[in-house]
Amino acid sequence: MHDGDLRRPTVVSAGEPAGIGPDIVLTYAAVTSQQPNWLTLGDPEMFSERAHQLGLHLNIVETVPEQCHQPAEKGHLRLLPPQLAEPCTAGLLNPNNARYVIDTLTTATQLCSDQRGSALVTAPVHKGIINEAGIPFTGHTELLAELTHTEQVVMMLAADQFRVALATTHLPLSAVPDAITPQLLEQVITIIHQEMVDKYGIANPTIRVCGLNPHAGEQGHMGREEIEVINPVIDTFSKRGMNISGAYPADTLLTPLYTQNTDVFLAMYHDQGLPVLKYAGFGHAINITLGLPIIRTSVDHGTALTLAGSGKADPSSFIAALTAAVQISQNRHNI
Amino acid sequence: MHDGDLRRPTVVSAGEPAGIGPDIVLTYAAVTSQQPNWLTLGDPEMFSERAHQLGLHLNIVETVPEQCHQPAEKGHLRLLPPQLAEPCTAGLLNPNNARYVIDTLTTATQLCSDQRGSALVTAPVHKGIINEAGIPFTGHTELLAELTHTEQVVMMLAADQFRVALATTHLPLSAVPDAITPQLLEQVITIIHQEMVDKYGIANPTIRVCGLNPHAGEQGHMGREEIEVINPVIDTFSKRGMNISGAYPADTLLTPLYTQNTDVFLAMYHDQGLPVLKYAGFGHAINITLGLPIIRTSVDHGTALTLAGSGKADPSSFIAALTAAVQISQNRHNI
Repeated sequence: MHDGDLRRPTVVSAGEPAGIGPDIVLTYAAVTSQQPNWLTLGDPEMFSERAHQLGLHLNIVETVPEQCHQPAEKGHLRLLPPQLAEPCTAGLLNPNNARYVIDTLTTATQLCSDQRGSALVTAPVHKGIINEAGIPFTGHTELLAELTHTEQVVMMLAADQFRVALATTHLPLSAVPDAITPQLLEQVITIIHQEMVDKYGIANPTIRVCGLNPHAGEQGHMGREEIEVINPVIDTFSKRGMNISGAYPADTLLTPLYTQNTDVFLAMYHDQGLPVLKYAGFGHAINITLGLPIIRTSVDHGTALTLAGSGKADPSSFIAALTAAVQISQNRHNI
Repeated sequence: MHDGDLRRPTVVSAGEPAGIGPDIVLTYAAVTSQQPNWLTLGDPEMFSERAHQLGLHLNIVETVPEQCHQPAEKGHLRLLPPQLAEPCTAGLLNPNNARYVIDTLTTATQLCSDQRGSALVTAPVHKGIINEAGIPFTGHTELLAELTHTEQVVMMLAADQFRVALATTHLPLSAVPDAITPQLLEQVITIIHQEMVDKYGIANPTIRVCGLNPHAGEQGHMGREEIEVINPVIDTFSKRGMNISGAYPADTLLTPLYTQNTDVFLAMYHDQGLPVLKYAGFGHAINITLGLPIIRTSVDHGTALTLAGSGKADPSSFIAALTAAVQISQNRHNI
């Protein structure tokens, strides 16, 4: 570990400028006393206007990562400025600024890949407007995987110590059963285990796995994927010494009885794992991408266009995402 | 409303004798000061032995519904006695007692159908041992539907005012998308609406509906069932004046933001709706069957064989189920 490593800033990509990304960044910067060493990528003029609109008084400082060695100060926002193509009005999407959004994210990722930033925190983007601008884009996670040449990543949501990773993410429900293959599960479990060790410093993490079917198939009476696909993979990893078990019925597993003694749950699909996690961590859940060569956390909400500029955007999820990114960076250096 | 109607007892079917059904009934009867008018169906000798095993001192009184007009007293358990075929040991399943379980449930249901009981509360049964005994049985709900000649019922879980009904229940996940048809949704929504009016006394209930796919399909990008099947049914009911909306993404809908102003959520399948409901109502969630001509509530847990006779069984879900059954009976009479 180099001392200097700890002093690299966490990099924040402020996302869609018409959404609440700038609002939550500004609110946090303006009111928070104990801040980590962090730096935001975004257009200074837009940030200045949004601050004015929100009635926030702060000092916007253009800088570079190499000048960010210390915690940020309350009332100051440190910006590395990509510039908007056109002025932005809060709440109004503009396809001509879509390239700016992608550039911001690309630059932020590159800073982390080049070890000029210690971790990446992303504010929400608007998938529709990016596609409308003619830029193919399926989501943050996919772009980050591409930019870092990563084949397989795993989406994990976390609320405090309650963590749920997903075997599949943004698939139609009808495509989920066929997507649950031994190969996929092996890749996903390998990544989860490795990342719990590397990013969370948990030596032998406890992983509990949901079944695909209700009641985890009830011994084959309600689906056979547990018997034929999921349980054999779990057994293989378990025999190798991994602390993994399942497949369990999701509705008895994802309860307070198990959240206390499980490092990470693996749900088979989006709506099996996320409603309960988001309920449990309402307002402060975060999204963490496992398997990337960089550390990346994200808010768990969208652009909330109608709230942009109103002062009503809640920065809780952003604060949790920034805090987690800093914590993971520190874990990584301490291992 | 007849005065006498309010004085009919709520009938409890004690379920699998080797499970925790008798334990939770006995514990409640022994320690609770303010009890409603209720009556349990179960074998008196087995109850007496279990009470002894649990160290509970209570008076077991054999009776009939017509003698139950008043709240039960603490320290007394009123029993209508079907008799076991063979003695029961807590924790040990015996197929020779499976017929007793079915008979208990059948008699309890009949008492309610005949208006000798006001509502039915069921303790858990063990599906496997009943089938092993050669009795075809797929679940409580299905048997109750058959006994009361009901074509379509809806399973709803509730924790306090948070209620989730299911469009489909115990199907393999791969069979869910095809099962979500306009006909099914029309039947299910009609039942939910009518029962919220009839059993809960809510004049124009607010019903919010989950999509089938993640993000409710995201305008068709991740599945088209919302556009083709679910939304048109919602629109039809909405135009008729029903307070119904959707389809919403399950992971943004089933959060504290909406639980406060929604009478019932409709989830499309088991693991979309139940993990979050059971997390929110951990230990005191209950199961309510909508669409039956009788009132039926149930605990949300299983037989927990390893806990039977140990004194460690938690009666919270039973208390919630009994309380809800009594409340619904009163609502019905007050409408």
